[in-house]
This record gives sequence, C-alpha cells and structure tokens, in this order.
Amino acid sequence: MSDSTGITAETLGSALLANFPGVTFQRHTIPFIDTVEGARNVVRDIQHAKADGAEPIVFATVKSAEILAELTASEAVVIDLLGGHLRELEAALGSTASEQLGQYHGVGDIERYFARMRAVEYAIEHDDGQSMRALDIADVIIIAPSRCGKTPTTMYLALQYGLLVANYPLTDDDFPSDGLPRTVSPYVDKCFGLTTTPLRLSQVRHERRPSSTYSSLAQCTLELRRAEDLYRRNRVPFLNSSTKSVEEMSAVIMQSMRLRS
Amino acid sequence: MSDSTGITAETLGSALLANFPGVTFQRHTIPFIDTVEGARNVVRDIQHAKADGAEPIVFATVKSAEILAELTASEAVVIDLLGGHLRELEAALGSTASEQLGQYHGVGDIERYFARMRAVEYAIEHDDGQSMRALDIADVIIIAPSRCGKTPTTMYLALQYGLLVANYPLTDDDFPSDGLPRTVSPYVDKCFGLTTTPLRLSQVRHERRPSSTYSSLAQCTLELRRAEDLYRRNRVPFLNSSTKSVEEMSAVIMQSMRLRS
Repeated sequence: MSDSTGITAETLGSALLANFPGVTFQRHTIPFIDTVEGARNVVRDIQHAKADGAEPIVFATVKSAEILAELTASEAVVIDLLGGHLRELEAALGSTASEQLGQYHGVGDIERYFARMRAVEYAIEHDDGQSMRALDIADVIIIAPSRCGKTPTTMYLALQYGLLVANYPLTDDDFPSDGLPRTVSPYVDKCFGLTTTPLRLSQVRHERRPSSTYSSLAQCTLELRRAEDLYRRNRVPFLNSSTKSVEEMSAVIMQSMRLRS
Repeated sequence: MSDSTGITAETLGSALLANFPGVTFQRHTIPFIDTVEGARNVVRDIQHAKADGAEPIVFATVKSAEILAELTASEAVVIDLLGGHLRELEAALGSTASEQLGQYHGVGDIERYFARMRAVEYAIEHDDGQSMRALDIADVIIIAPSRCGKTPTTMYLALQYGLLVANYPLTDDDFPSDGLPRTVSPYVDKCFGLTTTPLRLSQVRHERRPSSTYSSLAQCTLELRRAEDLYRRNRVPFLNSSTKSVEEMSAVIMQSMRLRS
C-alpha cells in the first residue's frame, strides 16, 4: 500500500518475501492511498481477507502518520518501509523530512524525462540491428545470437537509466570471419556480448519456432560456441544470461562498461 | 550498496532522499558486494569520501550479518533496508528467512522471462501504430497525439508487468470524425488516452522540431482539445501526463483498466 505509485512497496516487499520460499503469498498492490478515507477502505479489505482465513501483511510506503495509524490499528501486520528510515535520515542529516509526499517517481525534471524518451526511441530504432544510424553515440552495443536476451536488456537499460543502447544479432553469416560484424567493428569498445547455455537457448527458441533447426540443440551449441570465440578473440566482455534476470544482466553490463555512477 | 543488483537499494534510497529537497546528494550504486573483502573496499571508499568532506550515508541491502558489520563499523551512517524488516516478517510468519541471497531480481521462473520478452517485442512491433496485427490480444491500447508520452509508458508496462501494450497516434486525419480511428475503434474497451498541457507539449515537441508548426502553442492547444473531446465522446478513460512520471502514468493506467492484482 502506497500514497503514490506503489512501485517502491512492490519492489522492496517482493525482495523481502523472496526470503521465505516456503511460504505462499497472494499479492495485491494498492496505490494512491493518500486520504484517511482511502486507508479505511483498505482496512475493510483487510478484515475481509482475515475473515477468509488469510494473514494479511501490509508493506506500507505512506508519509502521513494519520493514514499509517489507520493501518496499524487494523488486524494486519504492518511493515512501515519509510517511516523508520526517514527518522534515521533526519538524525543523520540534522534536517526534517519535507511534509509533501515523496516525489521520487514524480515527473522530476523535464530533462530526465527527455533522456528516457530519447533512450527508448533510440532502443526501438536500433533493435536487432535495424538501423546503423548514430551508432557512434551509443553508450553500449549488445551483441549476441538470436534469443539470448538482447532486446529486453536493451529496453531496461534505456528506460531505467536513460542509456543509449543498440543491439546487433550475430548470425551464421558473421562467423566465417574472425572479426566482429563490419557494422559494429568500429565500435568494439562499446560492445558487450551475451551468451547462454545451449539447453536454455534451445528452450527459448523452441517457444518461437518449435522443432526447427533454429531451435535444435546442435544449432544452439554451435552458435553459442562461435559467439563466445568471437567475444574472446575481440576482447569483448560478455556474460552468460542463462541464470540471470534482465535486471541482473543490466547491472552487470553497467558495471562492466563503467556506465554507472 | 547491495549483495545483488542494487535496484532495491536504489529505488528505496532515492524515495527516501526525495524527502529532503534542501540537501544535495551525490549518489553511487555499488552492486554485487557479497564478500567481506568487497565490503572492506567499500569501507575504504567511505574513508576517502569522508576525508574529502562528505558525510557518507549507506543504504544497504545485504543479507550477510558479517558484511553488514563491516559497514556499520565504518564512519558512514548505515541504513539497513532489509534486516529489520526481515526480523518483523520472521515474527509475523513464525518462519526463518532463508540463508540464501534474496533472489527477487533473479531470473525466477522461465515463464516470467518469456512473458516480459514477448511483451517487449509486442510493444516494439505495435509502437506508434506501426502494426495492426493481433490488437485483439492487447491488454491496453494507449492513444494520444504525438509526444504525450505513449512510447515510454508502453515500454514500462511491457517490461515491468509483462502486459501487452499497443499504442496509436492521434493525428489531424483522425479529427474530422467523431469516432475513434478505425483501426482501434473495435477495441474501444481496451483504449486509454493521454493528454497534457499545451505548454508542456510545445516544450517537448520543440525538443524534436524547434520552431515548427508542429511544436507551436496554437497547434498543440488544438490537438489536445480535439483529443480530449474524442476521449470524452467515446468514454475512453484518460490522464494528463504533464505532471506525471512514466511510473505514475503506468500505475494510473493499470488501476483504471483493472490490470493490477
């Protein structure tokens, strides 16, 4: 439950629940609760859930003490994700938290908005090697065989961090040569490679084209071996995406390419 | 600082700092600190920052008590974003948190990965009305005049929530008629409109095409008025994006279209 988008509560709440793999949770995100009346509706939902035999736990990111008090007086366990930390910060900074709602997910400055918009448009334009225009201004060029995770990783880096990310597919045509594909070879310092395990790649490709050569274990094994050779020969840093989420891949790429402050 | 991607620490840390608008912060994200040795390197950076006159504050999401102890023994103020809440959860659940690292941003099940990948590809294919294929399986179709925020919002919904989102531009051609554009009119129940203020739209368009009719205040005023009329006549829910971030727009759309659990 949040007085704003609920994204912070969702993110941290899920991170916390991930530590209890043996317990089954049903999740509801309740954004924009910024009045006492709104909080009372949530309390009613809590009563219903409790009557149905659930044990409600509320992850709350609300600034108003009044709203929080409605919740803590309810039958739910309330975990206040902001309040305690705000008091810690006030003590550390010798400064009082602003009375306004936290505006982190607010529009903020128009410059950040422009940067994200530009980055998403750049990512769309440069997805899967579709455009060669303005590769010189890319922050990173992700290269990999088809279905190793280039597109979602590209989009995550663009949207979350406003980075200009192009991606380029490695196909059989690229492999007779020892060098990088001609289009991206001038930008070798911007390149980052993805690989995965043949089994995983075959699974993912099977989803798109079942029972094809493209999705066969033999073809996947071959393409991945060639791609990894190419990365090593050209000193392109790379990671194995098979056990990694889009967020983890993005974090590794930013760290490796020194794109994170 | 995080033993994983740092995304949770970044999100909640930024939400907390947004409450102190009078204070200037310099931010560094330090992911993948999962050894005591790694923590000691961070402590050295803290010492340097302190020597340079900064007052370091660490937002920590680390599970290991040993790693956290290195930090708390340093000169920084350490705000432990996980530990306290994990204890609260353990008490509420009568269960002990798993010893493994939290795997929330881990690859999780392959199904979620497929869903996100499919959603991002759907969003790219259907950006700006480029494709009419498979609109019937869209979860939502965002309609708006050019530069009201369709593309980044579409991509956020796809990437964060795996929703199938198409977007369609409203142009001057669409306005002689009172109905929705023919392509999207069969799916009126899936449509969600965006609008903004003429001044803001003019600013954003000016960024793309300075001093054009397209970016003039008169043209922006006209297009927005017509779009809002269109939404009202066709009972398409809509929001004003001028003071909202991509995250806020996404949260409003999901709530309005009942796409959130």
